[in-house]
Amino acid sequence: MTEKAPWITYRPELKVLDCTIRDGGLINKHQLSDDLVSATYHACIAAGIDYMEIGYKNSPRLFSPDEFGPWRHCNEEDMRRIVGEHDPEATGLKLTAMADATKSDWQKQIGPADESVLSMIRVAFYAHQVSEAAEMIQHAHEMGYETCANLMAVSNFSESEIDTVLATVRDTPAQIMVIVDSFGHLYREQIDALYTKYTQALEGTGKEIGLHMHNNLQLAFANTIEGIILGANRADATVFGLGRGAGNCPMELLLGFLRNPKFKLRPIIKLIQDYIAPLREQIEWGPLVPYNLTGQMNLHPRNAIEWREGDEKDDFVAFFDKVVADV
Amino acid sequence: MTEKAPWITYRPELKVLDCTIRDGGLINKHQLSDDLVSATYHACIAAGIDYMEIGYKNSPRLFSPDEFGPWRHCNEEDMRRIVGEHDPEATGLKLTAMADATKSDWQKQIGPADESVLSMIRVAFYAHQVSEAAEMIQHAHEMGYETCANLMAVSNFSESEIDTVLATVRDTPAQIMVIVDSFGHLYREQIDALYTKYTQALEGTGKEIGLHMHNNLQLAFANTIEGIILGANRADATVFGLGRGAGNCPMELLLGFLRNPKFKLRPIIKLIQDYIAPLREQIEWGPLVPYNLTGQMNLHPRNAIEWREGDEKDDFVAFFDKVVADV
Repeated sequence: MTEKAPWITYRPELKVLDCTIRDGGLINKHQLSDDLVSATYHACIAAGIDYMEIGYKNSPRLFSPDEFGPWRHCNEEDMRRIVGEHDPEATGLKLTAMADATKSDWQKQIGPADESVLSMIRVAFYAHQVSEAAEMIQHAHEMGYETCANLMAVSNFSESEIDTVLATVRDTPAQIMVIVDSFGHLYREQIDALYTKYTQALEGTGKEIGLHMHNNLQLAFANTIEGIILGANRADATVFGLGRGAGNCPMELLLGFLRNPKFKLRPIIKLIQDYIAPLREQIEWGPLVPYNLTGQMNLHPRNAIEWREGDEKDDFVAFFDKVVADV
Repeated sequence: MTEKAPWITYRPELKVLDCTIRDGGLINKHQLSDDLVSATYHACIAAGIDYMEIGYKNSPRLFSPDEFGPWRHCNEEDMRRIVGEHDPEATGLKLTAMADATKSDWQKQIGPADESVLSMIRVAFYAHQVSEAAEMIQHAHEMGYETCANLMAVSNFSESEIDTVLATVRDTPAQIMVIVDSFGHLYREQIDALYTKYTQALEGTGKEIGLHMHNNLQLAFANTIEGIILGANRADATVFGLGRGAGNCPMELLLGFLRNPKFKLRPIIKLIQDYIAPLREQIEWGPLVPYNLTGQMNLHPRNAIEWREGDEKDDFVAFFDKVVADV
């Protein structure tokens, strides 16, 4: 087995993280039913997926439980209602939650790992929040979790800002640093440049590179493949691409690409059929024209999301004129 | 300007071909309205697109005009009803039609270029049909057309078959040889290998490499970008990805990627809004789950197309079990 596996063989180190519930929940304030979360959990186990991100550890002060569903806070009792005692060894699946800098009461919300069903905390942050992110990673590490650093919206930061973030993350205990294309803006050559930058900055630390791509330009899967070819060993995906705005790298495409026989596609197809495709009748996501345009313009998808909620949602030309005029 | 343009500059040699009508027409036997074809023609001109493929030159004996629309035959009077005398110089747009080996009465159907609104004939063929394809290319060349060789379903042929095809095409007057991923099966590393094979086989002839990708794995745009990065100077796309089965590389994504200021996106967005998105209420295309699966399995999409026309069209698990069991 070479480090960069040739075609049709595989790298056993490559691990897949499902963030269907965490990212998909952003569409409807994490008002996802227990039934859906449970079905996703069991599908992840059956499919041989390595990690499932069940939601956010975000502050109930900032995100009221009256308005936001349980997967915005990931209280232990809510998670256990779905996963019981959850045995990572027996199931082959580790659970993870994401905590945002400035949006989490992390000293209170993130307690000892041996009292939690969670195995990993992923810390999401913007460049200017890297100092708090480093403290959060340190705290989660001391509590006994695996840790992961997710610099969001990387296409929105200068190279020197990214360099500063990487130098800071280098000195944290985070085992993974993720390339996060929140705006769905990156083309393959930019993925290559970022992968090189991340690996050079973290050289010798043993930290892995992760991939979290959005599908504004129908490139989420392609950019994930690209990162894997380059050597990234952690890849995020969501079932049927469920996720805010344009959505994410589709799990059913990623598992079809990977050659590790432990991954099984059928449970994912069944989850799509029984749960995720029917969801489309209630909530919208995918690489629609307005998301194509915000991706091309390197803009946050919020303008496109609002447009799709308005009366002129199908007036793509008006949105084009607005987006171009705004810039 | 370097041969492989660095980011944000462009190669003026790179030419874009719209095959919305030709490939999209395969969904409904080319029963596309004059109004739609005319709107596409005018959008191509306004968008600065280099070539528009208006349909097939296929035999009326094999494809009865009672059953198939005019864009299956591309008779001169039908084309002129839309484009008038068509001036390639004044409009910046050349028109092309595709002729299939074994399906065209090419000696009769392809007359002198100076009596036609067409500037180019693209010859489509499978590997075993390469001898007839070479004769067709020679004939079209002698009639005064630009010519192009499209080996279809390249993922379905062995390397030695492809080598034989390339050696044959090398000696024809075809100006372009297109990498055609009819099954939507190819990943980036396979695009790289084919690009290398095609360029080496055609070295010194001045022939250009073209790209025609299908979207089964949501990789049509990514693979087109990949070929362009490698140096291919001809790229096919269709508006809104319209095309049989999973559809094609979306023109709106390709134009957003290209940096040549002659390309304008707005006319394409307007065509989507006014004509192509509304078509979705009548005919289906796009990277749906059954097409994901045939793409992964390197199968012709016909099984998936039939499945989507049946009563169990949304039973993805049953299709999965059928496709896996069939192989």
